[in-house]
Amino acid sequence: MFGNQIAGQISAEGKSFFSSFNPVLNSKNEEVFSVATSEEIENALDFLEKSFYSFANSSSQKRFLLLKKIAEEFLKSKNKIQDAYCKESGLSHERFEIEFNRTYNQVILFAHFLEKSNGDVISENEADSLKNLPKLTKKRIPLGPIVVFGASNFPLAYSTLGGDTVAALAAGCPVIVKAHPFHPETSYLVGEVIQNAIAKTEISPGIFSQLFDDGYYTALKLVQDRRIKAGGFTGSYQGGKALYDLAQSRDNPIPFFAEMGSSNPVFVFPELMDEKKEEWTSIFAKSITNDAGQFCTKPGIFFVPNTSSGEDFIEKLCNNVLAEPSFYMLHPTICSSYEKNKIARLNESKGVLFEKPDELESNQGRQGVLVTNVEDLFENPTLQDEVFGPFAIIFKYNSNDELKRAIELLNGQLTSSILCSDTELEEYDEIIFTITQKAGRIIRNGVPTGVRVCESMHHGGPFPATTDSRFTAVGTDSILRFTRPVVYQG
Amino acid sequence: MFGNQIAGQISAEGKSFFSSFNPVLNSKNEEVFSVATSEEIENALDFLEKSFYSFANSSSQKRFLLLKKIAEEFLKSKNKIQDAYCKESGLSHERFEIEFNRTYNQVILFAHFLEKSNGDVISENEADSLKNLPKLTKKRIPLGPIVVFGASNFPLAYSTLGGDTVAALAAGCPVIVKAHPFHPETSYLVGEVIQNAIAKTEISPGIFSQLFDDGYYTALKLVQDRRIKAGGFTGSYQGGKALYDLAQSRDNPIPFFAEMGSSNPVFVFPELMDEKKEEWTSIFAKSITNDAGQFCTKPGIFFVPNTSSGEDFIEKLCNNVLAEPSFYMLHPTICSSYEKNKIARLNESKGVLFEKPDELESNQGRQGVLVTNVEDLFENPTLQDEVFGPFAIIFKYNSNDELKRAIELLNGQLTSSILCSDTELEEYDEIIFTITQKAGRIIRNGVPTGVRVCESMHHGGPFPATTDSRFTAVGTDSILRFTRPVVYQG
Repeated sequence: MFGNQIAGQISAEGKSFFSSFNPVLNSKNEEVFSVATSEEIENALDFLEKSFYSFANSSSQKRFLLLKKIAEEFLKSKNKIQDAYCKESGLSHERFEIEFNRTYNQVILFAHFLEKSNGDVISENEADSLKNLPKLTKKRIPLGPIVVFGASNFPLAYSTLGGDTVAALAAGCPVIVKAHPFHPETSYLVGEVIQNAIAKTEISPGIFSQLFDDGYYTALKLVQDRRIKAGGFTGSYQGGKALYDLAQSRDNPIPFFAEMGSSNPVFVFPELMDEKKEEWTSIFAKSITNDAGQFCTKPGIFFVPNTSSGEDFIEKLCNNVLAEPSFYMLHPTICSSYEKNKIARLNESKGVLFEKPDELESNQGRQGVLVTNVEDLFENPTLQDEVFGPFAIIFKYNSNDELKRAIELLNGQLTSSILCSDTELEEYDEIIFTITQKAGRIIRNGVPTGVRVCESMHHGGPFPATTDSRFTAVGTDSILRFTRPVVYQG
Repeated sequence: MFGNQIAGQISAEGKSFFSSFNPVLNSKNEEVFSVATSEEIENALDFLEKSFYSFANSSSQKRFLLLKKIAEEFLKSKNKIQDAYCKESGLSHERFEIEFNRTYNQVILFAHFLEKSNGDVISENEADSLKNLPKLTKKRIPLGPIVVFGASNFPLAYSTLGGDTVAALAAGCPVIVKAHPFHPETSYLVGEVIQNAIAKTEISPGIFSQLFDDGYYTALKLVQDRRIKAGGFTGSYQGGKALYDLAQSRDNPIPFFAEMGSSNPVFVFPELMDEKKEEWTSIFAKSITNDAGQFCTKPGIFFVPNTSSGEDFIEKLCNNVLAEPSFYMLHPTICSSYEKNKIARLNESKGVLFEKPDELESNQGRQGVLVTNVEDLFENPTLQDEVFGPFAIIFKYNSNDELKRAIELLNGQLTSSILCSDTELEEYDEIIFTITQKAGRIIRNGVPTGVRVCESMHHGGPFPATTDSRFTAVGTDSILRFTRPVVYQG
């Protein structure tokens, strides 16, 4: 049995247990996880609070060494983690390889960031004795203990050692992770990596705990506890918004950054549609279907001119999507929600659904493309809502006015892709401006999946893509979520 | 009669009116202001929305010229503004001079910031063709139309042309100001300054409107309107929290930065207390009483060792506070709230209240110091809540443990002052760390009033001092409240 990881120790005091599921074998996994008790939650929070003073005051050099040690331990455990990862997620070995490297590189990116750090000074103003003005030194300080919620669709890169955890540790914030119940063993092994790494430094083991729960109790307790000073979440709108509202309804509201998915609209402009048809329909078909479309950046809605070239483009895109392989989805509940949402979209529209006809294995996601007119969106704006899975809706538009009206109806998005020529970029300036108002990343002539992890990445966007468009979940600037400026005067 | 200022025009369609009050003459002012109607609100919002595209795309050079023009027009109207300012606030000509210059310098600070701007680029990562990584350019873009609420206690520096408005305009956000009903004429004249300045540029007059209302209707409408993308507020906890909650309960929650005051604790450590008694009690007595203590940074609670030196310090501070002149308060309601709160604090404690004994004019604030033991705070933590006016509570503490316990009870603060020697700074490191967790600005051996307006200033702090400790209301970084990053890929 696997227990909760609390300040370097293991604790399994509870009487509730759960196991994960193997989507490929379509059966429950053997490993049993102990649901955190109230006392265990309390205990972990206490450790977080007590370790904050020394961790917040640790030099950036010390935190650099911690992250380097974590990266080393992570590499050492690669094989063990791979087995659990594939068994619990239905994701392939190839995908594991990509996600493992991305997660590793993210730790290294933050380690280098700390290595080059200037002691967290933001800016200084010298004293001016003539004007009787004091010296001011503005520094960045950690907010305090952070709660991180593991995501279902990235068992590594947005989970126990995901961007939220690494940013918080880099900032000097103790972290408590609520593991995602779909991949507890993967989470446990990565938690072990972090515990082992901390044990090899002088830093208190109290700065990290990970709790397991297949229900809501632990999440609700953590978000509302006075010792928690901020939160990070990646997942569904329902889950993220509920936790955000809870964080805001506290006596002392706290920053709670929830990344809640996106439909990542793709705008196809006429000029290059013919010339680039082969290339674009091929890369977008892969982007829709790869790993069963279970990415927050999967392109989910397309706007294509209602012309004969547009029809050709759509036909090609549909054919390519159906020709791609089908993938296992993360969990039977994800797969059944996907099927339900796909059919709901069909019923809410006057469109035609093209689906892969082949017989599939249990828990594989059947890719589909719904083709309809943009009028459907005007009548029913919820058609734009994310369908988590290998599915996209293509809206055909007849005029720029229709396109503008559609854009104005769109909710906030993580990304928007614009497929156009240089001339069109100028010609459609005002439309593209409106698109930009709705998204955090604007991609010219490319797909939104495959988020580059680097300083300049911005993975965020206006509500409901995230709860605060001014922050990012990826890249070194993601540390800004978990720090605040303080100015020292005199 | 004075109308609402909407996109360069004046509109007075409503049937409700109000006037301001002269605290010195203790009588209503003659000027009559027209309360905004639903249509006028709608109209102003429409102009904001329509002007956003061109304003957001204006070069920083153009916005620099706008701010320079505003500064010029502001200087030209100085005399007119001064008359209204003093008449509506009861504040002195000396105070006007200081606040006028501060407001002017703030506009100039942002103008220079724009002049040196690099076109809002935050960072770039070059493409890496070997690894198939795209080029990324991260830029800062304006959030959209902003609502600004004028503050009662700073008719200039936190009102129509206050830090919120200047930061928003510098960012390229259209602004709608809800004028504070205590100083409508001052607001109107400053609104005229902004309108006149805009008229001398190529920028659309739609980017600025100012509405008048002595009730709540306009505020509630503005915060909830879909066209408003963020808000700035300076004022009471009740007002700020109500508007913040409203902003969070929208279908699309928006960032709402409310600065809601603070008790600005002062921690006196033993070593220098005797040596510095004369100097410190003198500057702090002025800081408590100047302009009737109507500053969000007025030091409102003190922690002093319960020793004979501590007693001397307290006696001196009390005597100095009572020896300072009394000032008019902003409004009769402010003055009566002040008297009520002061007596409530006395009744909630076991302490002794020292008050200025002299006969005062109507609307003058009678300064007072309540001296008590820190146990009172343990029994009744609301004793720490801000009393807006020339009043402070001195808590005597017997041990470092008592001091620690008191600090842990404190709410978030804009500032904390620490009066100590260099040796004590090291000795009390852990206590000072805890103090830092509660405040946005830490002042060593100085008073919190007199906020320096510059790049490194941080005027913010943990809840309830503000709604988001990661942002500042003063200094060029205050622009970060009203912008968000977008990354352009490919």
